[in-house]
Amino acid sequence: MGNVKTDIQIAQENDMLPIIDIANQIGLKQADLNLYGNYKAKINWDAVDKLRDNKSGKLVLVTAISPTPAGEGKSTVTVGLGDALTKAGQRTMIALREPSMGPTMGMKGGAAGGGYAQVQPMEEINLHFTGDFHAITSANNALAAFIDNHLQQGNELDIDERRITWKRVMDINDRALRNIIVGLGGPTNGVPREDGFDITVASEIMAILCLATSIADLKERIGNIVFGYDRQRRPLTVRDLKMEGALTLILKDALEPNLVQTLYHTPALVHGGPFANIAHGCNSVIATQTALKLADYVVTEAGFGADLGAEKFLDIKVPVLGKTPDVIVIVATIRSLKMHGGIKVADLKNTTDPSAVKRGFSNLKKHIENMQRYHVPVVVAINAFTQDTKEEVAVVEAECERLGVSCQVTDVWGQGPEGGLKLAEAVVKASENKQDYTPLYECSNTIIEEKISRIVKEIYGGEEVLYTPKARQQLKQFTKNGWDKLPVCMAKTQYSLSDDPKKLGRPQGFTITIREFVPKIGAGFIVAMTGDILTMPGLPKQPAALNMDVLEDGTVTGLF
Amino acid sequence: MGNVKTDIQIAQENDMLPIIDIANQIGLKQADLNLYGNYKAKINWDAVDKLRDNKSGKLVLVTAISPTPAGEGKSTVTVGLGDALTKAGQRTMIALREPSMGPTMGMKGGAAGGGYAQVQPMEEINLHFTGDFHAITSANNALAAFIDNHLQQGNELDIDERRITWKRVMDINDRALRNIIVGLGGPTNGVPREDGFDITVASEIMAILCLATSIADLKERIGNIVFGYDRQRRPLTVRDLKMEGALTLILKDALEPNLVQTLYHTPALVHGGPFANIAHGCNSVIATQTALKLADYVVTEAGFGADLGAEKFLDIKVPVLGKTPDVIVIVATIRSLKMHGGIKVADLKNTTDPSAVKRGFSNLKKHIENMQRYHVPVVVAINAFTQDTKEEVAVVEAECERLGVSCQVTDVWGQGPEGGLKLAEAVVKASENKQDYTPLYECSNTIIEEKISRIVKEIYGGEEVLYTPKARQQLKQFTKNGWDKLPVCMAKTQYSLSDDPKKLGRPQGFTITIREFVPKIGAGFIVAMTGDILTMPGLPKQPAALNMDVLEDGTVTGLF
Repeated sequence: MGNVKTDIQIAQENDMLPIIDIANQIGLKQADLNLYGNYKAKINWDAVDKLRDNKSGKLVLVTAISPTPAGEGKSTVTVGLGDALTKAGQRTMIALREPSMGPTMGMKGGAAGGGYAQVQPMEEINLHFTGDFHAITSANNALAAFIDNHLQQGNELDIDERRITWKRVMDINDRALRNIIVGLGGPTNGVPREDGFDITVASEIMAILCLATSIADLKERIGNIVFGYDRQRRPLTVRDLKMEGALTLILKDALEPNLVQTLYHTPALVHGGPFANIAHGCNSVIATQTALKLADYVVTEAGFGADLGAEKFLDIKVPVLGKTPDVIVIVATIRSLKMHGGIKVADLKNTTDPSAVKRGFSNLKKHIENMQRYHVPVVVAINAFTQDTKEEVAVVEAECERLGVSCQVTDVWGQGPEGGLKLAEAVVKASENKQDYTPLYECSNTIIEEKISRIVKEIYGGEEVLYTPKARQQLKQFTKNGWDKLPVCMAKTQYSLSDDPKKLGRPQGFTITIREFVPKIGAGFIVAMTGDILTMPGLPKQPAALNMDVLEDGTVTGLF
Repeated sequence: MGNVKTDIQIAQENDMLPIIDIANQIGLKQADLNLYGNYKAKINWDAVDKLRDNKSGKLVLVTAISPTPAGEGKSTVTVGLGDALTKAGQRTMIALREPSMGPTMGMKGGAAGGGYAQVQPMEEINLHFTGDFHAITSANNALAAFIDNHLQQGNELDIDERRITWKRVMDINDRALRNIIVGLGGPTNGVPREDGFDITVASEIMAILCLATSIADLKERIGNIVFGYDRQRRPLTVRDLKMEGALTLILKDALEPNLVQTLYHTPALVHGGPFANIAHGCNSVIATQTALKLADYVVTEAGFGADLGAEKFLDIKVPVLGKTPDVIVIVATIRSLKMHGGIKVADLKNTTDPSAVKRGFSNLKKHIENMQRYHVPVVVAINAFTQDTKEEVAVVEAECERLGVSCQVTDVWGQGPEGGLKLAEAVVKASENKQDYTPLYECSNTIIEEKISRIVKEIYGGEEVLYTPKARQQLKQFTKNGWDKLPVCMAKTQYSLSDDPKKLGRPQGFTITIREFVPKIGAGFIVAMTGDILTMPGLPKQPAALNMDVLEDGTVTGLF
């Protein structure tokens, strides 16, 4: 650390290689790419298909402790670890989620790593990139328009306009669109009904794009989307509207993974970005799969803490991906551990408190145990900050040693790949262990309540699961609809292992209440809602956009 | 004609050249381009800037008679004329509008020409293309979100939420979004107010992008946008919200013109696509200007009939472009002339009726006179159909001869460039005439009523202009605001020279009522509304999307 350049300054000073050169490094030719300028490309469908028979490399999943306002730097460690593995001589690729433009305009902070561990070109990745999110927005809203048009044109399917569950989306933080009434203005202007907008990353189409394994699978999943119910309360699907072909057409290019590079020219696939609460929170299966076929090590990331992101990676994505992680890296910071140990964010500065670190380690320990439960080797990465003291770091190292887990201090933010070499070494070593992967549940033999019970008790460390009458009623309906064989996607606060964001560390003896379910039949999972999850963010009083500008020659300023 | 292949079949059978080769033809290098795959590229800002000192080629504006349901084929003639000029040995480029994805999903029919006169790759041009419309949608809606956020966060500017004129947009036909209420759901979810969505091509930002001459000019115009009024009814601008930098950033790439090719490899810039009623209806100034610097002949097009599209091209675009057309081509079909002569669309088939053609010629004649009023040489192009008879064609030829105007039958749809050679020859000949361009009005010396009076009397052939009390009131306000020096953009039905779509041919003795004005201060014009203009289309009962599909290997079907 000690470097005071901003992310965009570091990025703008860096020389990118032409993306064709990056592609050549991993054995791809120009004919395998659709270029988007000189530094971004989609790997085209023919090339993705051709790779399917290649041998798969090793998969490293980066996750974290329960996040705190102090920040963990998971994306930064993911990128830096990829660069360090490259520097250590391993043929490495990185697979990351695409950032959402909405939050970029709202809060300061991109999603392409930071410091000397970034993917490039960060300005474009953080704005329109290759248009994937725009395509998802278009497909989502085309479906909404066709539903309302069906109501308008005679309503052959007998859609109950009070039970349309499909919402419109926009990739902008816009709280005024959360609850709206559409179809006003008389008979030529549609059928009035309550509606609302989510942010694009919350669209079921985003989750589908990230789980689809081929164009045919994409179309199948889109056809399965349940957009609402008829007046007999029977579920209605996109297939009933005959829209699956057109929506797949709108998404055809978006399904191809995006190739970019890090500051140190490690190839990275940045593709897809579903929410980590109401969806599964990891980049596309297509991207991870493609990377595995092209590299010996693939470093990827899952959203939020390990209780949410990693659990979903393992229980929702892995069965589709057909490949389990060889190593799981859990990222923590001394600052965050201190917060889990009871220090307030305002008191963090200049507080050296090894005992708080020790108390806060309880959170990290639970996440370590959880990942070990799947029988995957775990490595802990301490993402270093200048304020960290030796005594504090020593606490974490000692506690990890007691658990037989490798713990490595990394400073990829300040030093680039050099700062991650020890972590890379530990990851390579851990990946050589024999695998004995054990899933949390067998999806098709386990009822939904049992799946939730396993997650709550074995992963969160809770005592009991409660269901509201509405949730109980829904479960009966789901069994009738044949949806009880689907995996569960928990929508829970990321800030605590419990459903109360204020309970830091390792809460115990708590119950989790399932308030309601949201079936995502196209994506292929049932979302279990444990509280209010905001699916359309708002803007702050001073949005980041107010500082952004572009000069006459096209130079961008104020973007981070 | 006689060829029964669909547009998409012809397009898919055609071999495109790599876009780099097309760029090389006009003296551009790879470094001047941002590639979007192999067959689309943006000419980057450095290259556009570098060309400004080049000599300009000749400009050919293609317009048409008042459109009828029989169709005129203006885009097809534009593309075919470009190909014919190329075949005749002229260094030629085409400048066209980008099609809107919304209507593509709704009605059959793209906007990339047809038959053997198309721009390529039509599948991509008709869907996301290079993402320009998505960027416009994002910028438009980011502004809307920031307005609502300003209301939410204390409303320092004292915005009157009943007088916010800025609407949200979407590139989808969605009538249910025409009239909505946003901000429902209590104090954390915004301030309730009436709102609505337009289709993206109706966004003022689309008009701005198409009139901006540089990044600095784009930012200036965006800053000038009036989004509503405060409680003292003072206009509020984007500059008051400090959003012009961020919005320009969102639009930075979209401002670069898109290079593609025709079936016969003529380079074409396809860029921007504002409405031709509530906006000025032509492709971007940047694209036309760039094409003029690269080619000896540039063929471009303006929306709807010459009373709307060409008038706006000449009175709104030309002053910004700084170049007047050297020739204006007016496209007509025998079928449309017969409709103007009183034949109903159902009776068109198998009706040979030279006298109806002669009656209908009155419409074409008025458009010829109008264009001659600007002192620009006119050429008439009859876009041939197999049903046309020699006698009918002879009527048009004779009438044109009487007016001293060259009239050429073209069949670029069925024959490609061969079918347009005579037209190309006539255009080259006409372009050698000495120019004596005479504008309809001097913008800065003429009050708004006088501008409208000139358009109505000299172009439409009307008797008188009436104003509603509201419009009169607005005019007073505009003078106070200093907006009376702006050009006028007429929003009128395209189907008639009058404001009554049923009055075909050459109506006379009619009045035009200006119901209200819509100031577009960022774009730099005042829209005069003569009737209800639908700015958000609806979907038909059987939308074209129902036939669209994409096969497992990525092949597109059913798109036209």
